[in-house]
Amino acid sequence: MNNERYERGLEKLREVDGEMGDKVIEALDAISPDFGRLLIEFPFGDVYSRPQLSLKDRELVTIAALGAMGGCAPQLKVHVNGALNVGWTREEIVESFIQLAVYAGFPAALNALSGAKEVFDERDGND
Amino acid sequence: MNNERYERGLEKLREVDGEMGDKVIEALDAISPDFGRLLIEFPFGDVYSRPQLSLKDRELVTIAALGAMGGCAPQLKVHVNGALNVGWTREEIVESFIQLAVYAGFPAALNALSGAKEVFDERDGND
Amino acid sequence: MNNERYERGLEKLREVDGEMGDKVIEALDAISPDFGRLLIEFPFGDVYSRPQLSLKDRELVTIAALGAMGGCAPQLKVHVNGALNVGWTREEIVESFIQLAVYAGFPAALNALSGAKEVFDERDGND
Amino acid sequence: MNNERYERGLEKLREVDGEMGDKVIEALDAISPDFGRLLIEFPFGDVYSRPQLSLKDRELVTIAALGAMGGCAPQLKVHVNGALNVGWTREEIVESFIQLAVYAGFPAALNALSGAKEVFDERDGND
Amino acid sequence: MNNERYERGLEKLREVDGEMGDKVIEALDAISPDFGRLLIEFPFGDVYSRPQLSLKDRELVTIAALGAMGGCAPQLKVHVNGALNVGWTREEIVESFIQLAVYAGFPAALNALSGAKEVFDERDGND
Amino acid sequence: MNNERYERGLEKLREVDGEMGDKVIEALDAISPDFGRLLIEFPFGDVYSRPQLSLKDRELVTIAALGAMGGCAPQLKVHVNGALNVGWTREEIVESFIQLAVYAGFPAALNALSGAKEVFDERDGND
Repeated sequence: MNNERYERGLEKLREVDGEMGDKVIEALDAISPDFGRLLIEFPFGDVYSRPQLSLKDRELVTIAALGAMGGCAPQLKVHVNGALNVGWTREEIVESFIQLAVYAGFPAALNALSGAKEVFDERDGND
Repeated sequence: MNNERYERGLEKLREVDGEMGDKVIEALDAISPDFGRLLIEFPFGDVYSRPQLSLKDRELVTIAALGAMGGCAPQLKVHVNGALNVGWTREEIVESFIQLAVYAGFPAALNALSGAKEVFDERDGND
Repeated sequence: MNNERYERGLEKLREVDGEMGDKVIEALDAISPDFGRLLIEFPFGDVYSRPQLSLKDRELVTIAALGAMGGCAPQLKVHVNGALNVGWTREEIVESFIQLAVYAGFPAALNALSGAKEVFDERDGND
Repeated sequence: MNNERYERGLEKLREVDGEMGDKVIEALDAISPDFGRLLIEFPFGDVYSRPQLSLKDRELVTIAALGAMGGCAPQLKVHVNGALNVGWTREEIVESFIQLAVYAGFPAALNALSGAKEVFDERDGND
Repeated sequence: MNNERYERGLEKLREVDGEMGDKVIEALDAISPDFGRLLIEFPFGDVYSRPQLSLKDRELVTIAALGAMGGCAPQLKVHVNGALNVGWTREEIVESFIQLAVYAGFPAALNALSGAKEVFDERDGND
Repeated sequence: MNNERYERGLEKLREVDGEMGDKVIEALDAISPDFGRLLIEFPFGDVYSRPQLSLKDRELVTIAALGAMGGCAPQLKVHVNGALNVGWTREEIVESFIQLAVYAGFPAALNALSGAKEVFDERDGND
């Protein structure tokens, strides 16, 4: 039984992603409920819940990784929301993406900033 | 004249990377001194010196980005050193790379951890 | 003359991709008919038609590669269709993308699963 | 003061990208005016304005890099326009993307060609 | 308790990777024993042990993904060994990498073939 | 018969890569002579020999693509040599890689410059 990992993961997912986390899992229900369960158990139940790094720092790692890799616009938006949820300011998130211009190039930074803007606008009711 | 940007960048580079920063610039002297100057002026003089994100947070963004992208072993090692220099613990750096397994896959995490181990060993005099 | 490669490639393209293959070639006609010809001759005429690996295994290699690299949503969809055409089940295709979570990260797996779902829905007449 | 870099960069940006460059900067105003300034100063003020490579050759490097990396559709379109502005023909741009099939794979080439087609259609008033 | 996942994962790791799997875990002991445990539990205990795809097909997905992404030479070698262990022939592995030339480009194919050659030579005692 | 493509490709390969091209083909003989043949026939016989882009411009596209993608150090070195063989100066090649810093990030530029330096040193007899 991995009920414990699942429960811990679901709680952590909601702490980070709020209702967007539930939407990701719901969307997976239509294609692979198993993967929805794995997504809760491993990333959130196993990794995010480890005490060696704060949740706030984990979200910075996550948005930096997603922005640098590119090609993950939906996940980047979920985690820009997550970063705001765990205490990063809009200015700090924007600045993290400016920092990416150095390491991943200006297009990666521009695409990440564009995703951040969409999230900020949605939060402001401007979408 | 961009003396001011260069001076500010050189100071910031040394604050982050210590003597490894000087080595990167020296190595560039043999292939493109101009690029060495640009590297000091833009990333360090223009970006790292901006106050919107702490130097410590910038280094976390940097090692997360380098680890996620892969293929940047030398730069990853320079910035694992940098992350230690600005206050991250070995345990936190290791944990950041464990977090990458979720977003960039296990091979990216393994390669980043391998680079971190080399840096830790060098610092311990075990290289 | 490369009529032979072209004819062999066109037959193979249709065997794999069905009418979606024809659409790719038609779309190329508007920008580069030459590239449409090269696409038939080399990938399909030269590579896919080699006997060293079954067509079914080739399609698994292809969807794994496209899903892992990311950024190829249109091609991934063409080849999820191709994978179904040559005998893979929906469950096996989904499972291949779950396997990608380990090597390319969860976002790559999520994006590939999302592409697979679109193809399944189109096949079911739900688009 | 970096007025000089900014002025030189803005002029270069307009020489390359025409009014699309202004649109990129305007779009950045809504999310990070600072990044808009950095984008003018470093890429265009510092790099593009260096005499060691012609502007025409720089644009070829740029579209080849963007096409090979993938995931940069908006930037690729801006620079396909830029490449046309500085003297490359449509046929040469298409051929550069065909060349990418060898090094970055057929999907990267197809995506780049698709971006090029959109630009050509927009220029022809067919969008 | 996740003893069950760990035990199932260790068994699967050994089935796929033989003694090379043990070496990967040993190497991780020196930098992060926790990550060694996670590597056994999630990829091997959770994913590889799912019945929806055969172990043989999983290894084909894995070498295709690693070869296409590039930058994972050590992991690619482990899994070329794994692919041989679960029943793929050398010729089929080589052919899978030839197939990658179409989707990830010739350099990716060349690098994967180079890794395969090293594995074959090591198995033949020619290293 | 594809003798004609092979002959044309071999001639083009030698024109671009000189004896390094022969070494690439020789190395492939030990793992996959078929892939050596495909490498001559498609990239060099089919693509490089097309008249729509000059050989000199093709090499610029190639080194820009390889440098931007990263992870292709051996192929990058072959084509830095190729770029020199078809008429680019060392300064122009270096400048192309500086340009990559904007689009692919500073690490990609540093790695490409490092590969260029190795080629220049080998040509100078300093390796």
